[in-house]
Amino acid sequence: MKKLWDHFNEIKRLIYIRNLLSWDQQVNMPKGSVKGRADQLVIIQNLIHKRIKSDKTGDLIRSVEKLNNLNVTDLAMIREAKRHYMQATRIPETLLSEITKQSTLGYNIWEKARKKSDFSIFQPYLEKMISLQIEYAEKLETGPTLYSTLIDLYEPGVTYDWILKIFMNLKPKLIKFIKTLEKSSNKPDQSVLKRYYDPEKQWQLSLDIIKKLNFDFTIGRQDKSTHPFTVSLSSKDVRITTRIRENFLIDCLFSTIHECGHALYYMGFNEEIQGTLLADSCSYGIGESQSRLWENIIGRSKEFWIYWYTIFQKYFPENLKDYPLEEFYRAINIVQPSFIRVDADEVTYGLHIILRFELEKMMIEDGLQVSELASLWNEKMEELLGIIPPNDAMGLLQDAHWSSGGFGYFPSYALGNLYGAQIYQKALKDNPNLTKNYEKGEFSNLLNYLNENLYQYGKIYRANDLIKRVTGENLNPDYFMKYIEAKFKPIYRL
Amino acid sequence: MKKLWDHFNEIKRLIYIRNLLSWDQQVNMPKGSVKGRADQLVIIQNLIHKRIKSDKTGDLIRSVEKLNNLNVTDLAMIREAKRHYMQATRIPETLLSEITKQSTLGYNIWEKARKKSDFSIFQPYLEKMISLQIEYAEKLETGPTLYSTLIDLYEPGVTYDWILKIFMNLKPKLIKFIKTLEKSSNKPDQSVLKRYYDPEKQWQLSLDIIKKLNFDFTIGRQDKSTHPFTVSLSSKDVRITTRIRENFLIDCLFSTIHECGHALYYMGFNEEIQGTLLADSCSYGIGESQSRLWENIIGRSKEFWIYWYTIFQKYFPENLKDYPLEEFYRAINIVQPSFIRVDADEVTYGLHIILRFELEKMMIEDGLQVSELASLWNEKMEELLGIIPPNDAMGLLQDAHWSSGGFGYFPSYALGNLYGAQIYQKALKDNPNLTKNYEKGEFSNLLNYLNENLYQYGKIYRANDLIKRVTGENLNPDYFMKYIEAKFKPIYRL
Repeated sequence: MKKLWDHFNEIKRLIYIRNLLSWDQQVNMPKGSVKGRADQLVIIQNLIHKRIKSDKTGDLIRSVEKLNNLNVTDLAMIREAKRHYMQATRIPETLLSEITKQSTLGYNIWEKARKKSDFSIFQPYLEKMISLQIEYAEKLETGPTLYSTLIDLYEPGVTYDWILKIFMNLKPKLIKFIKTLEKSSNKPDQSVLKRYYDPEKQWQLSLDIIKKLNFDFTIGRQDKSTHPFTVSLSSKDVRITTRIRENFLIDCLFSTIHECGHALYYMGFNEEIQGTLLADSCSYGIGESQSRLWENIIGRSKEFWIYWYTIFQKYFPENLKDYPLEEFYRAINIVQPSFIRVDADEVTYGLHIILRFELEKMMIEDGLQVSELASLWNEKMEELLGIIPPNDAMGLLQDAHWSSGGFGYFPSYALGNLYGAQIYQKALKDNPNLTKNYEKGEFSNLLNYLNENLYQYGKIYRANDLIKRVTGENLNPDYFMKYIEAKFKPIYRL
Repeated sequence: MKKLWDHFNEIKRLIYIRNLLSWDQQVNMPKGSVKGRADQLVIIQNLIHKRIKSDKTGDLIRSVEKLNNLNVTDLAMIREAKRHYMQATRIPETLLSEITKQSTLGYNIWEKARKKSDFSIFQPYLEKMISLQIEYAEKLETGPTLYSTLIDLYEPGVTYDWILKIFMNLKPKLIKFIKTLEKSSNKPDQSVLKRYYDPEKQWQLSLDIIKKLNFDFTIGRQDKSTHPFTVSLSSKDVRITTRIRENFLIDCLFSTIHECGHALYYMGFNEEIQGTLLADSCSYGIGESQSRLWENIIGRSKEFWIYWYTIFQKYFPENLKDYPLEEFYRAINIVQPSFIRVDADEVTYGLHIILRFELEKMMIEDGLQVSELASLWNEKMEELLGIIPPNDAMGLLQDAHWSSGGFGYFPSYALGNLYGAQIYQKALKDNPNLTKNYEKGEFSNLLNYLNENLYQYGKIYRANDLIKRVTGENLNPDYFMKYIEAKFKPIYRL
């Protein structure tokens, strides 16, 4: 068993090195070095791949499977080792390199198509990528179905049917709730957030906030990048990035808190699993649940702002000195059907995901022609959100995921909202005075709770087991509905 | 031949990755991750080492050696491949890992000893390191003597005797010249440099300067670190660092120009050798010649400051507005025997090196007891510079080199001064109007000359061949003496 741990710990070190190459590319690397860095990524990626699919891995797995009396951590390690080994051995090299090539190509073409807002440029590349993804799922065969196989890459153990049931429960409720909010005669006004906010001060505030959220700067740092992200470069090196828009206060603010949520998770792994394959979020959905919990449930709560608003007023008196806390709180919690998923609010966000989930199923399993995709996208936008994108760039060309083969990834984002709400309700039930602390800028009680119940375990448990361990029941979207109703009705004066 | 290039280009990619790990460690990495990063460096270092000493390398070298009609670049590639292969195969793994272990340990102990200014703490570790270095040189056996073997690691093809001749020529002249300057009744005054200079402005100026020196920011960047350095992370990614002292203007300024000199060299390699083993300075000494040429010969020249001084006066009017250019120029060119090598000026610097060179020879070849080192150091300081260090920290504990096994490295620094002066004299002879451009902030003529005659070749030629190609003669220290006499006599009003 020790040999298996050592073998994969060495692979994990190569993964950390790959992560550094990619972090540096997005944060520091001079433009001219794109080609050089790509070559370096290929060499490291090949080293990782070769080691995972080596006979050594197979032999080690077979020999530990004969052991008895393994503890839960060892068993999880074997499970993850097998997942990696299976992916590496079942997918032929040729298919893998074709997907890699098509991803790079597809991504570049997608960028061009989006710039020109012309889906027809991207269409043949998407067709090719879909057939590659289908082939990938056929070879990997973890299924029950092809789309489930792809979903399982991000949400291990989760199937299409399971998600469908949850999303079908949620969909009508969300649509109805959005309509309710729309009827309000006293809606929040977001214009205060779109004044000029000095970028340097925004940056400083973002650092102050994550400090208070107990982001540990001795094992982490924050930088700037075009797309905010979180990455782990060793068991004691967790890095987040943010971006700043000088005419939109909340971009930097909530990007930072979102990524800080991911980082707190990574910083909380138990000593025992640090530097191992298990030092990772339980699933993409559970990972996202924590970034969203900190961003939305905490970062957009009234109590959070009771502490922070006076500080913000001092930083930006020209914009906020005479602006009431209550109206600021409403402004950062506006609910509005919109075209772009990444800009969507807590309430409408899930519908953007359901749309993609339904389309992905049709593309992967039901032979949907890519030529029909544009009209179907617009139809579904109207059904779900009541609006129709004015062009391809604001419609089906907005996300990069499909261009680089990320099918099955979207559902995790919405599951994150649901997991987060359910976990947080339990945290509140166990600690009724939790929110009182936020008003004093104190968030360590919540972090301790999450460390204790969630973060320390990393990938030891599957999402289903974890949510049951923490909350005592399966994932139940009612918690999310209850949370948004309780929060947004007062904001909309309903 | 192509297979040999490909093989080593892949190794070079791993070297670039190792360089990133180390750059990041010094520039960005949170403190907590020291252990994690060390593990990553070990794994990459092992991958590099394994590939170099592999049978594949040996087979490839043997087969290309049979080829005829190879061009100069191919021949240089074979020469460098053989050097690497020989080092990797002649040194036993056990010795290599013992040296690595002793380096880390020795460095840590050296830091402690220096802090306490107590050589006796470090003494046993130095003794051990010397015996390891002797063993290393015995195994490597590139000779003709043990110390020459170590020197050859940094100055390929150069021997102790060759350096000795040059240094013995230089030593009495330097000592005499320093005494001449000391007799001046009108010495420069450095106090203006020790006022408060806003760090943010120093940083901005350092960027402005390297922009004017044609540092290419599309394939490079500057950051801050404790010890300034230059590193290449791909053929299109050259990074330099600097450090800022708010009460000493010239630390950041000349660190930046020094590292920029290294970077211009790296940025100038011919397309043909980019990303290969030959994409490196010809030798440490030639590398240092270029950093010192830009730092001292250009950066401390009158013409350079005719352009820059008015800009500096605008940045720091409180310190410089009424301070004359001529006095500023004299202040940055003060010559003063001092204890610390890295703070030494152009004139006294060589004597610090000669001292170390003489002691290293005695330690490696003549059985000098480490217990005698301290008194010998002080004796030589008095002989060469006329001063005696008040304690170990300012004496034989000042450099990290010996603690981590860097014997034979020091001479390159002084050779750099000599190579630089000789090359620059030739550049002036070929372009008599060169210095006129500096007054307009124009440095591209010089850079073009150096690119054309030096930088493009990287490691293709050996230092001896290169200096003969560029200047038409062997290294001749008289050029350096002529340069400093012509420069410093007027500064000292002699």
